[in-house]
Amino acid sequence: MKKAVVLLSGGLDSTTVLGIAHAQGYICYGLSFRYGQRHVVELEAAQRVAESFEVQDHLILDVDLRRLGGSSLTDNIQVPKDRDHFPDEIPNTYVPGRNIIFLSLALAWAETLGAQDIFIGANAVDFSGYPDCRPEFISAFQHMARVGTKAGVQGNVPYVHAPLMDLSKSQIIKKGLELGIDYRLTHSCYDPEPNGSPCCRCDSCILRIKGFRKLGMKDPGVTNNQ
Amino acid sequence: MKKAVVLLSGGLDSTTVLGIAHAQGYICYGLSFRYGQRHVVELEAAQRVAESFEVQDHLILDVDLRRLGGSSLTDNIQVPKDRDHFPDEIPNTYVPGRNIIFLSLALAWAETLGAQDIFIGANAVDFSGYPDCRPEFISAFQHMARVGTKAGVQGNVPYVHAPLMDLSKSQIIKKGLELGIDYRLTHSCYDPEPNGSPCCRCDSCILRIKGFRKLGMKDPGVTNNQ
Repeated sequence: MKKAVVLLSGGLDSTTVLGIAHAQGYICYGLSFRYGQRHVVELEAAQRVAESFEVQDHLILDVDLRRLGGSSLTDNIQVPKDRDHFPDEIPNTYVPGRNIIFLSLALAWAETLGAQDIFIGANAVDFSGYPDCRPEFISAFQHMARVGTKAGVQGNVPYVHAPLMDLSKSQIIKKGLELGIDYRLTHSCYDPEPNGSPCCRCDSCILRIKGFRKLGMKDPGVTNNQ
Repeated sequence: MKKAVVLLSGGLDSTTVLGIAHAQGYICYGLSFRYGQRHVVELEAAQRVAESFEVQDHLILDVDLRRLGGSSLTDNIQVPKDRDHFPDEIPNTYVPGRNIIFLSLALAWAETLGAQDIFIGANAVDFSGYPDCRPEFISAFQHMARVGTKAGVQGNVPYVHAPLMDLSKSQIIKKGLELGIDYRLTHSCYDPEPNGSPCCRCDSCILRIKGFRKLGMKDPGVTNNQ
Protein backbone atom coordinates (compact mmCIF):
# COMPACT_ATOMS: atom_id res chain seq x y z
CA MET A 1 0.00 0.00 0.00
CA LYS A 2 1.12 3.51 -0.78
CA LYS A 3 2.24 5.95 1.90
CA ALA A 4 1.59 9.68 2.10
CA VAL A 5 2.90 12.44 4.35
CA VAL A 6 0.08 14.87 5.11
CA LEU A 7 0.78 18.34 6.50
CA LEU A 8 -1.72 18.65 9.31
CA SER A 9 -2.24 21.93 11.16
CA GLY A 10 -5.49 20.79 12.71
CA GLY A 11 -7.42 23.39 10.72
CA LEU A 12 -10.31 22.94 8.35
CA ASP A 13 -8.24 22.72 5.16
CA SER A 14 -5.55 20.30 6.27
CA THR A 15 -8.16 18.08 7.94
CA THR A 16 -10.09 17.90 4.68
CA VAL A 17 -6.90 17.02 2.86
CA LEU A 18 -6.19 14.21 5.31
CA GLY A 19 -9.73 12.99 4.66
CA ILE A 20 -9.06 13.03 0.91
CA ALA A 21 -5.76 11.15 1.21
CA HIS A 22 -7.36 8.65 3.58
CA ALA A 23 -10.28 8.09 1.20
CA GLN A 24 -7.81 7.48 -1.62
CA GLY A 25 -6.39 4.57 0.33
CA TYR A 26 -3.08 6.04 1.44
CA ILE A 27 -1.33 4.96 4.62
CA CYS A 28 -1.17 8.44 6.13
CA TYR A 29 1.63 10.02 8.17
CA GLY A 30 0.52 13.29 9.77
CA LEU A 31 3.11 16.03 10.20
CA SER A 32 2.47 19.05 12.45
CA PHE A 33 4.67 21.85 13.75
CA ARG A 34 5.06 23.58 17.08
CA TYR A 35 6.55 26.71 15.54
CA GLY A 36 5.76 29.27 18.19
CA GLN A 37 2.30 30.01 16.81
CA ARG A 38 0.00 31.98 19.10
CA HIS A 39 -2.72 29.45 18.22
CA VAL A 40 -0.72 26.47 19.46
CA VAL A 41 -4.08 25.04 20.56
CA GLU A 42 -4.38 23.94 16.91
CA LEU A 43 -2.00 21.09 17.75
CA GLU A 44 -4.61 19.58 20.07
CA ALA A 45 -6.98 19.67 17.12
CA ALA A 46 -4.30 18.08 14.92
CA GLN A 47 -4.00 15.24 17.43
CA ARG A 48 -7.76 14.72 17.60
CA VAL A 49 -7.95 14.69 13.80
CA ALA A 50 -4.97 12.35 13.44
CA GLU A 51 -6.57 9.93 15.89
CA SER A 52 -9.93 10.14 14.17
CA PHE A 53 -8.31 9.00 10.91
CA GLU A 54 -6.13 6.42 12.65
CA VAL A 55 -3.01 7.70 10.91
CA GLN A 56 0.01 5.42 10.86
CA ASP A 57 2.08 8.01 12.70
CA HIS A 58 1.68 11.61 13.77
CA LEU A 59 4.82 13.65 14.26
CA ILE A 60 4.82 17.07 15.91
CA LEU A 61 8.12 18.76 15.14
CA ASP A 62 9.53 21.73 17.03
CA VAL A 63 10.84 24.50 14.79
CA ASP A 64 10.78 27.78 16.68
CA LEU A 65 10.02 30.40 14.03
CA ARG A 66 9.68 33.08 16.73
CA ARG A 67 13.46 33.28 16.57
CA LEU A 68 13.22 34.42 12.94
CA GLY A 69 10.32 36.81 13.58
CA GLY A 70 8.32 38.71 11.01
CA SER A 71 4.70 37.64 11.66
CA SER A 72 1.76 38.47 13.90
CA LEU A 73 1.26 34.74 14.34
CA THR A 74 4.59 34.37 16.11
CA ASP A 75 5.35 37.90 17.36
CA ASN A 76 3.57 40.33 19.62
CA ILE A 77 1.77 42.08 16.74
CA GLN A 78 -2.00 42.55 16.50
CA VAL A 79 -3.73 40.03 14.20
CA PRO A 80 -6.08 41.83 11.74
CA LYS A 81 -9.75 41.55 12.72
CA ASP A 82 -13.19 42.15 11.21
CA ARG A 83 -11.97 42.38 7.62
CA ASP A 84 -14.93 42.12 5.28
CA HIS A 85 -12.79 41.84 2.22
CA PHE A 86 -9.09 41.18 1.89
CA PRO A 87 -7.12 43.77 -0.05
CA ASP A 88 -4.28 42.74 -2.35
CA GLU A 89 -1.70 43.44 0.32
CA ILE A 90 -0.32 40.38 2.12
CA PRO A 91 -1.44 40.64 5.79
CA ASN A 92 0.89 40.49 8.78
CA THR A 93 -0.28 36.94 9.52
CA TYR A 94 2.06 35.88 6.71
CA VAL A 95 4.88 33.81 8.26
CA PRO A 96 8.07 34.15 6.19
CA GLY A 97 8.91 30.87 4.52
CA ARG A 98 6.32 28.85 6.43
CA ASN A 99 5.07 26.48 3.74
CA ILE A 100 8.57 26.27 2.25
CA ILE A 101 9.92 25.12 5.61
CA PHE A 102 6.99 22.78 6.32
CA LEU A 103 7.09 21.20 2.86
CA SER A 104 10.88 20.79 3.10
CA LEU A 105 10.50 18.81 6.31
CA ALA A 106 7.61 16.81 4.83
CA LEU A 107 9.82 16.04 1.85
CA ALA A 108 12.63 14.82 4.08
CA TRP A 109 10.27 12.56 6.01
CA ALA A 110 8.67 11.26 2.81
CA GLU A 111 12.11 10.42 1.47
CA THR A 112 12.99 8.44 4.59
CA LEU A 113 9.63 6.67 4.71
CA GLY A 114 9.74 5.87 1.01
CA ALA A 115 6.48 7.77 0.59
CA GLN A 116 5.74 8.83 -2.96
CA ASP A 117 3.14 11.42 -2.02
CA ILE A 118 2.84 14.57 0.09
CA PHE A 119 -0.45 16.36 0.73
CA ILE A 120 -0.86 20.02 1.65
CA GLY A 121 -4.03 22.06 2.20
CA ALA A 122 -2.81 25.08 0.22
CA ASN A 123 -5.66 27.03 -1.30
CA ALA A 124 -5.59 30.09 -3.54
CA VAL A 125 -9.28 31.03 -3.58
CA ASP A 126 -10.57 31.88 -0.10
CA PHE A 127 -7.19 32.76 1.33
CA SER A 128 -5.19 35.69 2.65
CA GLY A 129 -2.96 36.12 -0.38
CA TYR A 130 0.00 34.20 0.99
CA PRO A 131 2.47 33.60 -1.87
CA ASP A 132 3.30 30.10 -0.57
CA CYS A 133 -0.30 28.95 -1.09
CA ARG A 134 -0.37 29.49 -4.85
CA PRO A 135 -0.06 26.87 -7.60
CA GLU A 136 3.10 28.45 -9.02
CA PHE A 137 4.76 27.94 -5.63
CA ILE A 138 3.77 24.28 -5.48
CA SER A 139 5.13 23.72 -9.01
CA ALA A 140 8.39 25.47 -8.17
CA PHE A 141 8.76 23.46 -4.95
CA GLN A 142 8.13 20.26 -6.89
CA HIS A 143 10.90 21.06 -9.35
CA MET A 144 13.29 22.02 -6.56
CA ALA A 145 12.51 18.74 -4.78
CA ARG A 146 13.26 16.83 -7.97
CA VAL A 147 16.78 18.23 -8.31
CA GLY A 148 17.56 18.60 -4.59
CA THR A 149 16.92 15.12 -3.20
CA LYS A 150 18.34 11.64 -3.60
CA ALA A 151 14.82 10.39 -4.37
CA GLY A 152 14.55 13.00 -7.12
CA VAL A 153 17.89 12.11 -8.67
CA GLN A 154 16.78 8.48 -8.65
CA GLY A 155 13.60 9.41 -10.49
CA ASN A 156 11.11 8.91 -7.67
CA VAL A 157 10.64 12.28 -6.04
CA PRO A 158 7.50 12.49 -3.87
CA TYR A 159 4.65 14.26 -5.62
CA VAL A 160 3.16 17.27 -3.84
CA HIS A 161 -0.65 17.20 -3.98
CA ALA A 162 -2.63 20.34 -3.20
CA PRO A 163 -6.16 19.07 -3.87
CA LEU A 164 -7.89 22.16 -2.43
CA MET A 165 -5.99 24.66 -4.54
CA ASP A 166 -8.87 25.75 -6.76
CA LEU A 167 -11.80 25.24 -4.38
CA SER A 168 -13.77 27.87 -2.49
CA LYS A 169 -14.10 27.41 1.27
CA SER A 170 -17.67 26.17 0.93
CA GLN A 171 -16.59 23.66 -1.73
CA ILE A 172 -13.86 22.43 0.61
CA ILE A 173 -16.37 22.03 3.46
CA LYS A 174 -18.84 20.27 1.17
CA LYS A 175 -16.19 17.80 0.11
CA GLY A 176 -15.18 17.21 3.74
CA LEU A 177 -18.76 16.63 4.85
CA GLU A 178 -19.19 14.09 2.05
CA LEU A 179 -16.14 12.32 3.45
CA GLY A 180 -17.75 12.27 6.89
CA ILE A 181 -15.38 14.75 8.53
CA ASP A 182 -16.46 16.09 11.91
CA TYR A 183 -15.34 19.71 11.77
CA ARG A 184 -15.94 20.12 15.51
CA LEU A 185 -12.54 18.44 15.87
CA THR A 186 -10.74 21.20 13.97
CA HIS A 187 -9.32 24.60 14.93
CA SER A 188 -8.60 27.39 12.44
CA CYS A 189 -8.52 30.61 14.49
CA TYR A 190 -5.29 32.63 14.44
CA ASP A 191 -5.94 34.41 17.71
CA PRO A 192 -8.02 32.22 20.03
CA GLU A 193 -9.42 33.23 23.40
CA PRO A 194 -7.49 32.08 26.46
CA ASN A 195 -9.85 29.09 26.73
CA GLY A 196 -9.02 28.08 23.14
CA SER A 197 -12.30 29.24 21.58
CA PRO A 198 -12.05 30.88 18.15
CA CYS A 199 -12.19 34.70 18.07
CA CYS A 200 -14.60 34.66 15.10
CA ARG A 201 -13.03 37.91 13.89
CA CYS A 202 -9.69 37.02 12.26
CA ASP A 203 -9.40 36.23 8.53
CA SER A 204 -9.24 32.52 9.22
CA CYS A 205 -12.39 32.50 11.36
CA ILE A 206 -14.27 34.75 8.93
CA LEU A 207 -13.39 32.58 5.94
CA ARG A 208 -14.67 29.41 7.53
CA ILE A 209 -17.80 30.92 9.09
CA LYS A 210 -18.71 32.35 5.67
CA GLY A 211 -17.98 29.00 4.05
CA PHE A 212 -20.40 27.18 6.32
CA ARG A 213 -22.96 29.99 5.99
CA LYS A 214 -22.92 29.60 2.20
CA LEU A 215 -23.99 25.99 2.76
CA GLY A 216 -26.77 27.17 5.09
CA MET A 217 -24.91 25.88 8.14
CA LYS A 218 -23.38 27.22 11.30
CA ASP A 219 -19.67 26.53 11.82
CA PRO A 220 -19.73 23.54 14.18
CA GLY A 221 -16.37 24.66 15.58
CA VAL A 222 -17.95 27.81 16.98
CA THR A 223 -20.33 27.57 19.93
CA ASN A 224 -21.23 31.24 20.38
CA ASN A 225 -23.48 33.30 18.12
CA GLN A 226 -22.50 33.57 14.46
CA MET B 1 25.12 48.68 4.53
CA LYS B 2 23.87 45.43 3.04
CA LYS B 3 22.99 42.43 5.18
CA ALA B 4 23.62 38.75 4.43
CA VAL B 5 22.49 35.54 6.10
CA VAL B 6 25.36 33.03 6.01
CA LEU B 7 24.75 29.33 6.62
CA LEU B 8 27.52 28.41 9.02
CA SER B 9 28.15 24.80 10.00
CA GLY B 10 31.56 25.56 11.45
CA GLY B 11 33.26 23.53 8.74
CA LEU B 12 35.92 24.55 6.27
CA ASP B 13 33.56 25.49 3.44
CA SER B 14 31.01 27.57 5.33
CA THR B 15 33.79 29.35 7.21
CA THR B 16 35.41 30.30 3.91
CA VAL B 17 32.05 31.54 2.65
CA LEU B 18 31.62 33.70 5.74
CA GLY B 19 35.09 35.08 5.07
CA ILE B 20 34.07 35.90 1.49
CA ALA B 21 30.82 37.64 2.53
CA HIS B 22 32.68 39.54 5.25
CA ALA B 23 35.37 40.66 2.79
CA GLN B 24 32.65 41.88 0.44
CA GLY B 25 31.44 44.24 3.13
CA TYR B 26 28.24 42.52 4.19
CA ILE B 27 26.82 42.81 7.69
CA CYS B 28 26.76 39.07 8.35
CA TYR B 29 24.16 37.03 10.23
CA GLY B 30 25.37 33.48 10.91
CA LEU B 31 22.82 30.68 10.95
CA SER B 32 23.62 27.24 12.36
CA PHE B 33 21.55 24.20 13.19
CA ARG B 34 21.47 21.73 16.04
CA TYR B 35 19.79 19.03 13.98
CA GLY B 36 20.79 15.93 15.87
CA GLN B 37 24.09 15.58 14.04
CA ARG B 38 26.58 13.17 15.57
CA HIS B 39 29.23 15.84 15.05
CA VAL B 40 27.41 18.44 17.15
CA VAL B 41 30.87 19.59 18.20
CA GLU B 42 30.85 21.51 14.90
CA LEU B 43 28.59 24.07 16.60
CA GLU B 44 31.41 25.02 18.94
CA ALA B 45 33.49 25.65 15.84
CA ALA B 46 30.63 27.69 14.34
CA GLN B 47 30.60 29.86 17.46
CA ARG B 48 34.38 30.35 17.36
CA VAL B 49 34.20 31.28 13.69
CA ALA B 50 31.22 33.61 14.16
CA GLU B 51 33.08 35.41 16.95
CA SER B 52 36.27 35.66 14.91
CA PHE B 53 34.33 37.50 12.17
CA GLU B 54 32.37 39.58 14.67
CA VAL B 55 29.08 38.71 12.97
CA GLN B 56 26.09 40.91 13.75
CA ASP B 57 24.16 37.93 15.13
CA HIS B 58 24.64 34.17 15.29
CA LEU B 59 21.55 32.05 15.59
CA ILE B 60 21.66 28.34 16.39
CA LEU B 61 18.27 26.84 15.58
CA ASP B 62 17.03 23.49 16.86
CA VAL B 63 15.47 21.29 14.19
CA ASP B 64 15.68 17.67 15.24
CA LEU B 65 16.14 15.75 12.00
CA ARG B 66 16.70 12.53 13.95
CA ARG B 67 12.93 12.32 14.13
CA LEU B 68 12.81 12.04 10.33
CA GLY B 69 15.73 9.60 10.10
CA GLY B 70 17.48 8.40 6.98
CA SER B 71 21.13 9.32 7.53
CA SER B 72 24.27 8.02 9.20
CA LEU B 73 24.84 11.57 10.46
CA THR B 74 21.69 11.46 12.58
CA ASP B 75 21.03 7.74 13.05
CA ASN B 76 22.98 4.86 14.50
CA ILE B 77 24.47 3.85 11.14
CA GLN B 78 28.20 3.49 10.42
CA VAL B 79 29.73 6.49 8.61
CA PRO B 80 31.81 5.31 5.60
CA LYS B 81 35.54 5.39 6.25
CA ASP B 82 38.82 5.22 4.30
CA ARG B 83 37.25 5.80 0.90
CA ASP B 84 39.97 6.61 -1.59
CA HIS B 85 37.54 7.59 -4.27
CA PHE B 86 33.84 8.26 -4.08
CA PRO B 87 31.67 6.16 -6.39
CA ASP B 88 28.62 7.68 -8.11
CA GLU B 89 26.33 6.35 -5.41
CA ILE B 90 25.17 8.92 -2.83
CA PRO B 91 26.63 7.84 0.54
CA ASN B 92 24.61 7.26 3.71
CA THR B 93 25.88 10.56 5.12
CA TYR B 94 23.29 12.21 2.89
CA VAL B 95 20.67 13.82 5.14
CA PRO B 96 17.29 13.94 3.37
CA GLY B 97 16.32 17.51 2.59
CA ARG B 98 19.11 19.07 4.65
CA ASN B 99 20.12 22.01 2.47
CA ILE B 100 16.50 22.53 1.42
CA ILE B 101 15.50 22.85 5.08
CA PHE B 102 18.50 25.00 6.02
CA LEU B 103 18.08 27.34 3.04
CA SER B 104 14.34 27.63 3.73
CA LEU B 105 15.05 28.82 7.26
CA ALA B 106 17.81 31.13 6.01
CA LEU B 107 15.33 32.55 3.51
CA ALA B 108 12.75 33.19 6.23
CA TRP B 109 15.32 34.95 8.39
CA ALA B 110 16.62 36.99 5.45
CA GLU B 111 13.08 38.08 4.67
CA THR B 112 12.53 39.28 8.25
CA LEU B 113 15.91 41.00 8.43
CA GLY B 114 15.44 42.64 5.05
CA ALA B 115 18.63 40.92 3.89
CA GLN B 116 19.01 40.73 0.13
CA ASP B 117 21.65 38.01 0.19
CA ILE B 118 22.12 34.46 1.48
CA PHE B 119 25.43 32.61 1.36
CA ILE B 120 25.89 28.84 1.37
CA GLY B 121 29.07 26.75 1.13
CA ALA B 122 27.65 24.26 -1.36
CA ASN B 123 30.31 22.76 -3.57
CA ALA B 124 29.97 20.32 -6.44
CA VAL B 125 33.63 19.43 -7.06
CA ASP B 126 35.24 17.81 -4.03
CA PHE B 127 31.98 16.60 -2.50
CA SER B 128 30.11 13.42 -1.70
CA GLY B 129 27.59 13.66 -4.53
CA TYR B 130 24.81 15.20 -2.46
CA PRO B 131 22.09 16.42 -4.85
CA ASP B 132 21.42 19.50 -2.71
CA CYS B 133 24.97 20.78 -3.30
CA ARG B 134 24.67 21.12 -7.07
CA PRO B 135 24.13 24.32 -9.08
CA GLU B 136 20.82 23.07 -10.51
CA PHE B 137 19.51 22.76 -6.97
CA ILE B 138 20.55 26.30 -6.05
CA SER B 139 18.84 27.64 -9.21
CA ALA B 140 15.67 25.71 -8.49
CA PHE B 141 15.64 26.91 -4.89
CA GLN B 142 16.11 30.49 -6.08
CA HIS B 143 13.11 30.24 -8.38
CA MET B 144 10.99 28.64 -5.67
CA ALA B 145 11.97 31.43 -3.25
CA ARG B 146 10.95 34.02 -5.84
CA VAL B 147 7.40 32.69 -6.15
CA GLY B 148 6.96 31.46 -2.56
CA THR B 149 7.78 34.54 -0.46
CA LYS B 150 6.37 38.00 0.09
CA ALA B 151 9.81 39.43 -0.71
CA GLY B 152 9.78 37.53 -4.00
CA VAL B 153 6.32 38.71 -4.96
CA GLN B 154 7.46 42.26 -4.23
CA GLY B 155 10.45 41.80 -6.52
CA ASN B 156 13.21 41.70 -3.93
CA VAL B 157 13.80 38.04 -3.17
CA PRO B 158 17.11 37.35 -1.42
CA TYR B 159 19.77 36.06 -3.80
CA VAL B 160 21.39 32.73 -2.93
CA HIS B 161 25.17 32.89 -3.40
CA ALA B 162 27.17 29.67 -3.58
CA PRO B 163 30.64 31.09 -4.27
CA LEU B 164 32.46 27.77 -3.75
CA MET B 165 30.33 25.82 -6.19
CA ASP B 166 32.99 25.27 -8.87
CA LEU B 167 36.13 25.26 -6.73
CA SER B 168 38.24 22.30 -5.72
CA LYS B 169 38.93 21.88 -2.01
CA SER B 170 42.46 23.22 -2.39
CA GLN B 171 41.19 26.25 -4.28
CA ILE B 172 38.71 26.88 -1.46
CA ILE B 173 41.48 26.64 1.13
CA LYS B 174 43.75 28.91 -0.92
CA LYS B 175 41.03 31.52 -1.09
CA GLY B 176 40.37 31.26 2.65
CA LEU B 177 44.05 31.59 3.49
CA GLU B 178 44.24 34.71 1.34
CA LEU B 179 41.35 36.07 3.43
CA GLY B 180 43.31 35.33 6.59
CA ILE B 181 41.08 32.52 7.84
CA ASP B 182 42.46 30.45 10.69
CA TYR B 183 41.28 26.94 9.82
CA ARG B 184 42.23 25.70 13.29
CA LEU B 185 38.92 27.19 14.38
CA THR B 186 36.92 24.94 12.05
CA HIS B 187 35.54 21.41 12.34
CA SER B 188 34.56 19.27 9.34
CA CYS B 189 34.63 15.66 10.61
CA TYR B 190 31.39 13.68 10.42
CA ASP B 191 32.33 11.19 13.10
CA PRO B 192 34.65 12.78 15.65
CA GLU B 193 36.38 11.05 18.53
CA PRO B 194 34.76 11.42 21.96
CA ASN B 195 37.18 14.30 22.67
CA GLY B 196 36.01 16.09 19.51
CA SER B 197 39.10 15.36 17.42
CA PRO B 198 38.51 14.57 13.74
CA CYS B 199 38.58 10.88 12.76
CA CYS B 200 40.71 11.62 9.66
CA ARG B 201 38.98 8.72 7.88
CA CYS B 202 35.49 9.94 6.86
CA ASP B 203 34.88 11.57 3.47
CA SER B 204 34.81 15.02 4.99
CA CYS B 205 38.17 14.58 6.75
CA ILE B 206 39.77 12.97 3.71
CA LEU B 207 38.63 15.78 1.39
CA ARG B 208 40.09 18.52 3.54
CA ILE B 209 43.34 16.70 4.40
CA LYS B 210 43.90 16.12 0.67
CA GLY B 211 43.06 19.74 -0.05
CA PHE B 212 45.72 21.01 2.34
CA ARG B 213 48.18 18.38 1.11
CA LYS B 214 47.78 19.64 -2.45
CA LEU B 215 48.94 23.03 -1.19
CA GLY B 216 51.91 21.37 0.52
CA MET B 217 50.39 21.88 3.96
CA LYS B 218 49.15 19.85 6.87
CA ASP B 219 45.53 20.36 7.87
CA PRO B 220 45.83 22.72 10.84
CA GLY B 221 42.60 21.27 12.27
CA VAL B 222 44.30 17.89 12.75
CA THR B 223 46.94 17.48 15.43
CA ASN B 224 47.86 13.81 14.92
CA ASN B 225 49.81 12.33 12.04
CA GLN B 226 48.50 12.88 8.53
